[in-house]
Amino acid sequence: MTQGLKNRGRTRADMDERRQAVEAFSGAKLTTIASCPYDPQLAEKNIENMIGTISIPVGFVGPLMVKGDSADGEFLVPLATTEGALLASVNRGCSVITAAGGAASVVVKDGMTRGPVFRVRDARHAIQAANWMEENFDRIKAAAEATTSHGKLLSANPFVVGRSLFVRFTYSTGDAMGMNMATIASEAAARLIEQETGAVLVSVSGNFCVDKKPSALTYISGRGKIVLADITIPRSLLEKRMHTTPEAVVETCFRKCNVGSSLSASLGSNAHIANMLAAVYIATGQDPAQVAEGSMGTTTAEIVDGDLYFSVRLPAVEVGTVGGGTRLPAQAEALSMMDCLGKGKARKFAEIVGAVVLAGELSTICAQDAGHLGAAHSRLGR
Amino acid sequence: MTQGLKNRGRTRADMDERRQAVEAFSGAKLTTIASCPYDPQLAEKNIENMIGTISIPVGFVGPLMVKGDSADGEFLVPLATTEGALLASVNRGCSVITAAGGAASVVVKDGMTRGPVFRVRDARHAIQAANWMEENFDRIKAAAEATTSHGKLLSANPFVVGRSLFVRFTYSTGDAMGMNMATIASEAAARLIEQETGAVLVSVSGNFCVDKKPSALTYISGRGKIVLADITIPRSLLEKRMHTTPEAVVETCFRKCNVGSSLSASLGSNAHIANMLAAVYIATGQDPAQVAEGSMGTTTAEIVDGDLYFSVRLPAVEVGTVGGGTRLPAQAEALSMMDCLGKGKARKFAEIVGAVVLAGELSTICAQDAGHLGAAHSRLGR
Amino acid sequence: MTQGLKNRGRTRADMDERRQAVEAFSGAKLTTIASCPYDPQLAEKNIENMIGTISIPVGFVGPLMVKGDSADGEFLVPLATTEGALLASVNRGCSVITAAGGAASVVVKDGMTRGPVFRVRDARHAIQAANWMEENFDRIKAAAEATTSHGKLLSANPFVVGRSLFVRFTYSTGDAMGMNMATIASEAAARLIEQETGAVLVSVSGNFCVDKKPSALTYISGRGKIVLADITIPRSLLEKRMHTTPEAVVETCFRKCNVGSSLSASLGSNAHIANMLAAVYIATGQDPAQVAEGSMGTTTAEIVDGDLYFSVRLPAVEVGTVGGGTRLPAQAEALSMMDCLGKGKARKFAEIVGAVVLAGELSTICAQDAGHLGAAHSRLGR
Amino acid sequence: MTQGLKNRGRTRADMDERRQAVEAFSGAKLTTIASCPYDPQLAEKNIENMIGTISIPVGFVGPLMVKGDSADGEFLVPLATTEGALLASVNRGCSVITAAGGAASVVVKDGMTRGPVFRVRDARHAIQAANWMEENFDRIKAAAEATTSHGKLLSANPFVVGRSLFVRFTYSTGDAMGMNMATIASEAAARLIEQETGAVLVSVSGNFCVDKKPSALTYISGRGKIVLADITIPRSLLEKRMHTTPEAVVETCFRKCNVGSSLSASLGSNAHIANMLAAVYIATGQDPAQVAEGSMGTTTAEIVDGDLYFSVRLPAVEVGTVGGGTRLPAQAEALSMMDCLGKGKARKFAEIVGAVVLAGELSTICAQDAGHLGAAHSRLGR
Repeated sequence: MTQGLKNRGRTRADMDERRQAVEAFSGAKLTTIASCPYDPQLAEKNIENMIGTISIPVGFVGPLMVKGDSADGEFLVPLATTEGALLASVNRGCSVITAAGGAASVVVKDGMTRGPVFRVRDARHAIQAANWMEENFDRIKAAAEATTSHGKLLSANPFVVGRSLFVRFTYSTGDAMGMNMATIASEAAARLIEQETGAVLVSVSGNFCVDKKPSALTYISGRGKIVLADITIPRSLLEKRMHTTPEAVVETCFRKCNVGSSLSASLGSNAHIANMLAAVYIATGQDPAQVAEGSMGTTTAEIVDGDLYFSVRLPAVEVGTVGGGTRLPAQAEALSMMDCLGKGKARKFAEIVGAVVLAGELSTICAQDAGHLGAAHSRLGR
Repeated sequence: MTQGLKNRGRTRADMDERRQAVEAFSGAKLTTIASCPYDPQLAEKNIENMIGTISIPVGFVGPLMVKGDSADGEFLVPLATTEGALLASVNRGCSVITAAGGAASVVVKDGMTRGPVFRVRDARHAIQAANWMEENFDRIKAAAEATTSHGKLLSANPFVVGRSLFVRFTYSTGDAMGMNMATIASEAAARLIEQETGAVLVSVSGNFCVDKKPSALTYISGRGKIVLADITIPRSLLEKRMHTTPEAVVETCFRKCNVGSSLSASLGSNAHIANMLAAVYIATGQDPAQVAEGSMGTTTAEIVDGDLYFSVRLPAVEVGTVGGGTRLPAQAEALSMMDCLGKGKARKFAEIVGAVVLAGELSTICAQDAGHLGAAHSRLGR
Repeated sequence: MTQGLKNRGRTRADMDERRQAVEAFSGAKLTTIASCPYDPQLAEKNIENMIGTISIPVGFVGPLMVKGDSADGEFLVPLATTEGALLASVNRGCSVITAAGGAASVVVKDGMTRGPVFRVRDARHAIQAANWMEENFDRIKAAAEATTSHGKLLSANPFVVGRSLFVRFTYSTGDAMGMNMATIASEAAARLIEQETGAVLVSVSGNFCVDKKPSALTYISGRGKIVLADITIPRSLLEKRMHTTPEAVVETCFRKCNVGSSLSASLGSNAHIANMLAAVYIATGQDPAQVAEGSMGTTTAEIVDGDLYFSVRLPAVEVGTVGGGTRLPAQAEALSMMDCLGKGKARKFAEIVGAVVLAGELSTICAQDAGHLGAAHSRLGR
Repeated sequence: MTQGLKNRGRTRADMDERRQAVEAFSGAKLTTIASCPYDPQLAEKNIENMIGTISIPVGFVGPLMVKGDSADGEFLVPLATTEGALLASVNRGCSVITAAGGAASVVVKDGMTRGPVFRVRDARHAIQAANWMEENFDRIKAAAEATTSHGKLLSANPFVVGRSLFVRFTYSTGDAMGMNMATIASEAAARLIEQETGAVLVSVSGNFCVDKKPSALTYISGRGKIVLADITIPRSLLEKRMHTTPEAVVETCFRKCNVGSSLSASLGSNAHIANMLAAVYIATGQDPAQVAEGSMGTTTAEIVDGDLYFSVRLPAVEVGTVGGGTRLPAQAEALSMMDCLGKGKARKFAEIVGAVVLAGELSTICAQDAGHLGAAHSRLGR
């Protein structure tokens, strides 16, 4: 039995042996998990100890009209979830957005970060090291970029507390999400800094990145792509399709997102941005743990000339269209649904993400102000 | 074509028609997504507009010895991810924990929350309403519990800002994660409050819940289950298996989790708790968007008598073993791997989650302090 | 010379000798500091190493009409500051509030806190200790209250992270601000907990109080007194006296306090609450360092039936009318200006503080939206 | 009576008339407040409606050896407070620091900020405006600097949420604290931006400054001067003078400042930095409301070669040695005690502030770990 548990092979036979060993160990029947609609060796860079797959239901929302810098047109967006009512709700938002002429969605900043921490002797040593870094940015850049064909080091910002020197490296990572690229490049940069300054690398991630944790640093400065999406919904359209008014949406957004999020000391202020991010990330092979950062978005509503202006700011859309989970067949297909697979597509994809988040926020806030939230979950998801 | 896009049916034929319509609309080939190893009607409460499934690779880690109040024994834990090196890393942590005698893991608080917001006339009106609620908790409780067979209203805490009255309802939800139950019950309670106090419900979620957003309120007070897990690793075991020392782990944890997380103004201080939560949530049919809250955990390390004491505090383990995504076949099988499917299992499952998070934190911090992070990703995940 | 520097006496002669020694050491002339309009021995419990006094200009604002539970009538409020334009601005707010019929101001929670931290063996030990505390609250209360004639222990809430057990004690402290009372009582309670549970006190303040630091814990739960103050200003009055409109105030409050404070990841959302708190605290012998907590207030504005509803929530009004700095002559006189000196006056004083903060917020936000901020400082304070 | 209350004059006779009117209105006797050891007209730019002065007891701590870039030598530092035991405690810290050879203290960043908010049409408009600002920084700089003889605009960073465009202006302000200078210059810059971009200024302070409120933005990026101060205390000195050990200090700092501050979701992690800032600010004519920001410091302790390394990071030392409250006689004298009055002294003063904060933190944490906190307050301050 433990023979099978210790099998480290990558073939379907290895996978099957491991799964049978798990069944033997646990007494469970793993019939559905056994299903793998592709050669498991395709996933060898995506997982270890593979025993099969979890089939997550996937649907689409749209057509969603997006008027971005890179994404321009109508898209069907794949969402994978097990939460009933989510797609119906987002789809309602898409429908209204498209009827209103489409969502603007723009990437306003783009850079993946790593924030190593070094041990220094004291504050003066930290300052010396920081000064060295500023004066030798070209050498640091060269060391970092020698490890990668696509990554470019954009900046290296030092912060000091006591004997800890943090450096936040920011990289342009092309169409990859870029976390691994940033890690490896930062290790190389760190080695140079160690040699030249006497600072000692303690961890390549000093929680100054800040990967997969909610932080004000990322909330303010961004990580991956900062995306802004917005739209103006005519009053009549809102009343007809959402059965609500601009006034009601603005009041809900004010009490809930502005006042409520502040009083609960939240990072960000929105309805459920995490839902749309998780669903589109899982569908397209992104890293769902990064929803921790992405969830910190801001949703705002205003009345403009009697109509509803509605917007989201997403500080951390961490997506790639090459590498990582996008290499798997279903995930690649999901990206291809939006013509977002491969090189030159990451910004386009991020803009579509911005628009679909906007749709989900709009729909849920309209539902909440009209008192339909419980009813929807009761009907569709219970 | 749009005929197919508008199909709202639930059968496999409906699913196929929709998917073909998506293919026609987008030009994409959705061959792998077409795979659905069960009758799509099984997912009718989990998704709308279904076109197939996304197959997420799933593996196991363990055996992991857990010494909890409800979970007691060795477990194989399913993790679904596309991030290479994650399972190998967590597995290494499991191996060391088991060799050290197993992880303590305990649920110390249990309650799902909803925080509606009401409009009141002014602060005095809010105070009157809050007083009424305190004096009539029994009636509120009866109204809420009339909507559910399993939920019990534990408390109703009011907070006031200006003309906004927030009430944080906390429920015992049995073995369900309980979000929908809490929503529906809170709507009923809110209607009573409206009638009796003149406060007007604006949204059943006033971002005082706080669902799927990082907030200090949840970080401090908890949501779902607060789980504490810890272990003492003998020095020799750590040196042999992790190639590091208690001193190095403590220093890394200090600079990274304590100092770094504080300076980046993070909620929580840990290495990558979101990774383990996302992977186990996706494998077992939990809601991966709730990783936004779950990611706010705290990891600590201390040297005790020369050995390494290591712990995590998870403020928001929001899991169920009935309902939601646990009804789907693969997800149910994943729960059954740990004998965690069905009634009476939610606390046991939460304790296993605590232990596997502990394993992942231990392994990554050991790897970071030893400078192996980039190497591991380079070898396994690139 | 160092003879004088080491003088530890309390008389005016001692004070003069020390000051002369400081003059000799530094070469500075301390002529004005030499002034002390009372016997320095009156300050012997307020300072050590006294060399004289700093004369802070004090003025008044008002009459300010307050309609509180304890404060009911028109008050002149003393503010001590060196920031030109502050009193003129707050006074303008007072004038409008009084013309509008007075500010409601109510204390909704009252309790001073101390949060010691204990070392425990592990999470299970912490849970045992927490359980003991819950079962033996009466004994803890008796131990704490044995140290004080006025303090009453209201609650003791445990929180655990790793080997650290925090307990947040909350006290009713009568008319004293109560920090020292809470410290001494908590030490006594902690000694009992040590004896009975084996937990070891590490610090009587575990930053779970949270004294003189901004924290979400205090922001949400309050410290000292939570005060709500609000008012409705008729549109015509606002236009006439503030040269602005409800719409402009609401927009400014929205963009600045709601959106701006959120995006800068602030605790609280207001214009300059710290200004009024600091000025009234310095005038009346309160602890100005507690402005760190008090500054976390929330200011909201809404349009109601065409008029302006305006409110503040102050989570931490930490004031006393006995003890501490209120014993000094000028400070006592300042309290007596509002009939707030001595026993039975703390809640009344807190309500007046709430109202004067409301006045200051109203005036500044009106000035900012009308573009007068720089002009006012230029004319009055430059 | 109200004649006197409405007197707006600046002479001593005006002051006296106002005070008498206050006495008549309130029935209070303001004998001590009447004292003003200088011509009240000296305070005409510091206050309105002046009725006298509040005499705050002031003492000194030191000699404190500082080894800064600008402050080099031994200093006596004035602290004004009414909190008994504070000076005794800080003085103890000064004594140990001086015995250990003095505190390093360095200003690592210097810039006063203002963050106006503009209304824009939508996200695209905001981006256009931001682009215009980047391309026309020279014009913005010229407009801002035309209003001031000392201020220099260093940067203008835009942030966008919905229809709100925030710009964080950072200025070098010479030896002034610079808030008014920054306000007036930012208004001029904003007028240019309005003209050229169509963005409409809503408030010159958009809470993106962030003045007198605790915010992660300032915590991370600094405001005024970021000061680092640190020292290594030999073990034997610590044991002899503080009756504690490096191990005990490190443990207290860890459980209290690191774990406790994180669990209470604080901005910053320290013992009582606000105390030292408030006392030195009040003594020297700084703005005590800015303690709200200054309180967010970070205190760390480590054992290095058996000795105690101890440090503080102060993100917001907002001090001036010209203008504002420094013009008043007693406050000017207090600055002159450290040879910090007038031009060319602001950095020197900030470094001394850093060192005295370090002394206060060291002493309190040593007292807390040795269980002396309540005892000290009981003996000296009760």
